[in-house]
Amino acid sequence: MSKANIFYAQSGGVTSVINASACGVIEAARRSRAVGRVLVGQNGILGALNEELIDTALESKRDIAMLRHTPSGAFGSCRYKLKSVEANRLEYERLIAVFRAHDIGYFFYNGGGDSQDTANKVAQFSQDVGYPVQCIGIPKTVDNDLPFTDTCPGFGSVAKYVAVATEEAGLDVASMAASSTKVFVLEVMGRHAGWIAAAAALAAKSKGDPPHIIILPEVAFDPARFLQKVAQTVAKEGYCVIVASEGAQFEDGRFLAASSGVDAFGHAQLGGVAPTLVEMIKAKLGYKCHWAVSDYLQRAARHIASAVDVAQAYAVGEAAVNLAVAGESGVMVTIERQAGIRYRWRVGKVALSRVANVERKMPKSFITRDGYGITAAGLNYLKPLIQGEDYPPYKEGLPEYVRLKNQLVPKKLPKFKMP
Amino acid sequence: MSKANIFYAQSGGVTSVINASACGVIEAARRSRAVGRVLVGQNGILGALNEELIDTALESKRDIAMLRHTPSGAFGSCRYKLKSVEANRLEYERLIAVFRAHDIGYFFYNGGGDSQDTANKVAQFSQDVGYPVQCIGIPKTVDNDLPFTDTCPGFGSVAKYVAVATEEAGLDVASMAASSTKVFVLEVMGRHAGWIAAAAALAAKSKGDPPHIIILPEVAFDPARFLQKVAQTVAKEGYCVIVASEGAQFEDGRFLAASSGVDAFGHAQLGGVAPTLVEMIKAKLGYKCHWAVSDYLQRAARHIASAVDVAQAYAVGEAAVNLAVAGESGVMVTIERQAGIRYRWRVGKVALSRVANVERKMPKSFITRDGYGITAAGLNYLKPLIQGEDYPPYKEGLPEYVRLKNQLVPKKLPKFKMP
Repeated sequence: MSKANIFYAQSGGVTSVINASACGVIEAARRSRAVGRVLVGQNGILGALNEELIDTALESKRDIAMLRHTPSGAFGSCRYKLKSVEANRLEYERLIAVFRAHDIGYFFYNGGGDSQDTANKVAQFSQDVGYPVQCIGIPKTVDNDLPFTDTCPGFGSVAKYVAVATEEAGLDVASMAASSTKVFVLEVMGRHAGWIAAAAALAAKSKGDPPHIIILPEVAFDPARFLQKVAQTVAKEGYCVIVASEGAQFEDGRFLAASSGVDAFGHAQLGGVAPTLVEMIKAKLGYKCHWAVSDYLQRAARHIASAVDVAQAYAVGEAAVNLAVAGESGVMVTIERQAGIRYRWRVGKVALSRVANVERKMPKSFITRDGYGITAAGLNYLKPLIQGEDYPPYKEGLPEYVRLKNQLVPKKLPKFKMP
Repeated sequence: MSKANIFYAQSGGVTSVINASACGVIEAARRSRAVGRVLVGQNGILGALNEELIDTALESKRDIAMLRHTPSGAFGSCRYKLKSVEANRLEYERLIAVFRAHDIGYFFYNGGGDSQDTANKVAQFSQDVGYPVQCIGIPKTVDNDLPFTDTCPGFGSVAKYVAVATEEAGLDVASMAASSTKVFVLEVMGRHAGWIAAAAALAAKSKGDPPHIIILPEVAFDPARFLQKVAQTVAKEGYCVIVASEGAQFEDGRFLAASSGVDAFGHAQLGGVAPTLVEMIKAKLGYKCHWAVSDYLQRAARHIASAVDVAQAYAVGEAAVNLAVAGESGVMVTIERQAGIRYRWRVGKVALSRVANVERKMPKSFITRDGYGITAAGLNYLKPLIQGEDYPPYKEGLPEYVRLKNQLVPKKLPKFKMP
């Protein structure tokens, strides 16, 4: 009997290191004698449903190695969540049919909480229908909100980007503040949790350094108290650097980004927490302000990735193969922080059933009493995650990122009509 | 007689390499036997008017060397333009009084067009009042709009930042486009000229690569034609990446960033070309969009500076000392591109009287016929400017940027009341 193939898919918002996990999967599979080829879903799980499977055996060793330093999803990702088996059994049956047709015995799903939930459901369903597939979750999310893992690959590099950007922009504002810009607001990702904004706190090397104010979704936003803090900071430091989560919200749960009404055409406000905060400050305090929204730049910024994050992203991919070969199923690979003063980590695992639908919030102990800063405990947690630089190679002034051939294996099944 | 001192000041918006010019000035002055100390204006020319002069002799060799890789203005910059001599003779007299009190024989002004104009006026005035000061302009501006120099230190690094950001974010959108975000808009600096947005074009390595649309201030913005181009691009490539100058404007000269009316409080629109374009696209084409505004991040991004830009920034500072020692005055240092296929450059000079109040626009020959792209001639000009990486040293995961002592020399004059 030929060895079973691996099906690997990338899911949800991409990161600067998710391809490093893919690289870990493919290189480990190539080294192993126990598994067959690695087939990858074109555009994530949609590729499995549509039987659009990329054959990684056709990619050169060099190109696969380059995945390690190439940001975003090299095979395409997707925002598509499988419903429950009860609600949409057809999709699960289709997945198993595709797996069966292509001798797939392993399903590696590389994503956040929703993806881990899906992997868990597929594991159970495949058992129930008598075609057991070993399902392994590979963690990935810049939101850092998966439970049972010390951190989520993707987060450390965004954290490093945000800390570096805060340090650099902070120096800029400090230079200009005497006669010009006094306030700078940087908006970063984080709909539900403030992990990314919190990482900006790493930029401060001495007391009084930026960021002076961090706005977290975990802390109800109080405009009067905020404006007072801005005025105090400008009075004391001469300028004020603010880092705000996109998910910042008022006491009543309304998002700041949706708070400024409608534009002249009657459309909902163009949005952005940063411009909203700037408008408040200009109106009430009159300072000259600048603002930036880093959006995709932060999660695609492979050029300033954290070496620790890249190593962990690769390791969780590699570990998925090792776990599969060892007969494991229904588990997610985790990062375990080991005890001790020096930062050390290793990969571990946790049952998918425990991961599904649990969101890890930032502990209260990480947030300073006034809600605008990060405590020593928080900094101790964050600091190791941004260590080391892992520069991509450059050619003619630009990073050399790989574009794979992405050739599909021939289809064997009739077309599937998406339900 | 003791050797005359140099007065050096940073002016206007800072860049990631203006301190490299300061490093060039100070290191060259320390090597020279012909000049005295380098005194630097705290917060630019305001430091001269207020007699707040930083004594760089008190800074260690190591700290001065670190200026080469430290972004923004290490001594403070300012937005303050001296009026004409006729309009405000008092300020010029004050400058000369301060120069005389501190044995200053050289005035190096590191800035854009306005600063070169000021340096020229000071040169003439100092002659007229019998205390001739040798005035040398050191070019600096991310806007790349100074004439008679092939490029302006500061621009190459922003160009590299924007090209890298476009390449990385482009990969992100490409990964997501099948089921989610189809359009990404990156807003970059450039009020009057599109040099910075143009640099995004360097990111495209193959036909069809991002950026698909560049919005330049030089080309009147036509919403209908733009939306058609977006729709065509999405149809053809599956997604669309747009890079827009903050100075983008309609046929009638109105800025796009100011076009969306007022918010719920009656304040002028929060602004931003990127959210304005996104609103148009969502309303008319219905695509899911993302947008980023890089603002200060782009000009502070020393972590991804162009090695060519850093070398040129240092060289123009160093050259100012050499020109001063050679007896020159009333000139600005320039970068000259030498003929030949391989990029080679050297420093040159031009009379300040020719530089003052001349703004270099992007040549029409650099813009493609449809107004949305950059021609081969434009790419040939831009490409050498982003070559090479000049990474700062890192410590504990973050760039190690220097904070100088910035100690002022004792004042000798009565306080000056700013007019």
